[in-house]
Amino acid sequence: MYTNSVLQTDYPWTKTPLVASAPMLNIAMAPLAVSVSAAGGLGFLAGGFDVSALESNLEEAVHLIKQSSAPIQETYASTAVLPIGVGFLNWGADLPKSIAAIEKYRPCAAWLFGPRSIPDDLRPWVEQVRAVTEGKTKIWVQVGTVAEAVAVAEALNPDVLVVQGADAGGHGLAQSASVITLVPEVKDVLTTRQVKNDIPLLAAGGIVDGRGMAASLALGASGVAMGTRFLASSEAKIARGYQDEVLRVSDGGSNTSRSKVYDRARGILSWPVQYDGRGVINKSYIDSAEGGMSDEENRALYKEELKKGDLGWGPNGRLTTYAGTGVGLVKTKLPAGEIITNMIQEAKAILQQLKA
Amino acid sequence: MYTNSVLQTDYPWTKTPLVASAPMLNIAMAPLAVSVSAAGGLGFLAGGFDVSALESNLEEAVHLIKQSSAPIQETYASTAVLPIGVGFLNWGADLPKSIAAIEKYRPCAAWLFGPRSIPDDLRPWVEQVRAVTEGKTKIWVQVGTVAEAVAVAEALNPDVLVVQGADAGGHGLAQSASVITLVPEVKDVLTTRQVKNDIPLLAAGGIVDGRGMAASLALGASGVAMGTRFLASSEAKIARGYQDEVLRVSDGGSNTSRSKVYDRARGILSWPVQYDGRGVINKSYIDSAEGGMSDEENRALYKEELKKGDLGWGPNGRLTTYAGTGVGLVKTKLPAGEIITNMIQEAKAILQQLKA
Repeated sequence: MYTNSVLQTDYPWTKTPLVASAPMLNIAMAPLAVSVSAAGGLGFLAGGFDVSALESNLEEAVHLIKQSSAPIQETYASTAVLPIGVGFLNWGADLPKSIAAIEKYRPCAAWLFGPRSIPDDLRPWVEQVRAVTEGKTKIWVQVGTVAEAVAVAEALNPDVLVVQGADAGGHGLAQSASVITLVPEVKDVLTTRQVKNDIPLLAAGGIVDGRGMAASLALGASGVAMGTRFLASSEAKIARGYQDEVLRVSDGGSNTSRSKVYDRARGILSWPVQYDGRGVINKSYIDSAEGGMSDEENRALYKEELKKGDLGWGPNGRLTTYAGTGVGLVKTKLPAGEIITNMIQEAKAILQQLKA
Repeated sequence: MYTNSVLQTDYPWTKTPLVASAPMLNIAMAPLAVSVSAAGGLGFLAGGFDVSALESNLEEAVHLIKQSSAPIQETYASTAVLPIGVGFLNWGADLPKSIAAIEKYRPCAAWLFGPRSIPDDLRPWVEQVRAVTEGKTKIWVQVGTVAEAVAVAEALNPDVLVVQGADAGGHGLAQSASVITLVPEVKDVLTTRQVKNDIPLLAAGGIVDGRGMAASLALGASGVAMGTRFLASSEAKIARGYQDEVLRVSDGGSNTSRSKVYDRARGILSWPVQYDGRGVINKSYIDSAEGGMSDEENRALYKEELKKGDLGWGPNGRLTTYAGTGVGLVKTKLPAGEIITNMIQEAKAILQQLKA
């Protein structure tokens, strides 16, 4: 059941079940993306909302791929398609520049997220990405509700839907279910409406190990997408203070919260209104949510806090530790490849045992 | 892996994996509780916060058990322990009256939930329940965070922990993770701290079918507890308008929300501050959350709405439809026994397929 022939055809170097690494802004750069793909996952490079560095990051990825594991080297040599994807924040990313980079580098997938609307920020992307790569760059769209999944599936015929539940770290819908109900309901509704047969769903939000992976498969997903777990990978481009905080925090549901304050404190004000972000509860959050501090003051204190560097993270700090509720399960920093190998092995062992 | 010898010893009529029905206030009465146990689950009768009708409800349960399936009849005849449990809302339930009922009827389990604190509202219950039934009435405690699970496990040595995630309908912690991360983190922490070996965890919150059950087992639970699914059972004591709304609502993450307004509109003001409840978004919610309506006006309109009877439920109504995000997966009203049989069968089929 967890083999999906579409995924294996489109991304021939990947193992099953598929593990994708999320295109975390400023963190998921070429080293992480390439390491994930080299280990049989599918690594995504963060394009974000400002794509000015995208071409140089893709150039770095090409360089790393040429020195990497045989399966991805060979895929790239034989297909001229990059065995990594690129993620975009579609409310802000520049379309012509992004399309130029995609045409030149041909990543295997474009992960689209955060549009103001489907017609404005997704449809032209889908049409142009497919046109300039003759469909070689597959279209992944991240959704957070059943309604969104249906609208995207009907309007865009995506190759993959990333189904993100409320446990996810960083940005997502302020109002949503977790994957425990979202994945099966999306699956049922797409099947009933016969939108597209067997569109692969990747579960995202709270999956950090083989247990979450096995659960996702049971819910009807074909694989998983993970962010928080890769924050504690050797290849993440992440401040020491941020990474230490990820390793420290336990009881993920108690010590993280969904809020818009993390964006406001950093002066990032352009996300569409339906999104917020899950981060570790810190001073920015508490002063705003409990103390009623103004955004202006919170932002000024945030700017001051930046001077502290790594010491600015933590429960008494103000720098943002975006992380999902699975943060309490992340206790060790590991190379991305080990994370993937371990979790696939663990998921398979669980499924073996449960069947018995 | 999903057989748990403790559960099978303590509740010998039950099938594996264990399905418990939650003690939903005013809804989970003797017919539902007995039907669930008769089908090999473990049915809970709602004791709630006002136990004045508890003895008569238990008397009705005895009557029904004596006419019910052979396994539960025989268990009751041979052990004099009732093959159903009773659930309490511990911030309000009267301890002496509850203990008297437990001593007289000896339900197989007492499900404790919603204490103001462990010393005030749980410890005396646990001591007295165990004393008056020589431990025959097992102690189930519902928790919603890792910290709560550890505190309860260390202080009370419970027989079962019901681990409730944020997708659950009705009351729960305002701040929590879903079961996707909560169940494994509770499991890991209890194992690491060696609090108690192998205390069975039941996953609650968003589980409505065999997919959710299989996922829960993969996450480390020994079984599941369900509320929302049994709202659409033949035996639930539920208004037609409420049940119809459960069957109607789709996209559970979009169309339900966690809020305290449902309590405030009904004039129920005694829940400890850390709890709220998940219900279908309706006029009470929208007027409060979006329109800033005062509780006084909202409550007055709620009282008016009561006169409409079944027509008072629905998106334009004001009567509360407590339900979890799994409500979108509940499409048919079925006898409780069929719900249980179907989901165990579905979970086993999924695990067979996934292993292959």
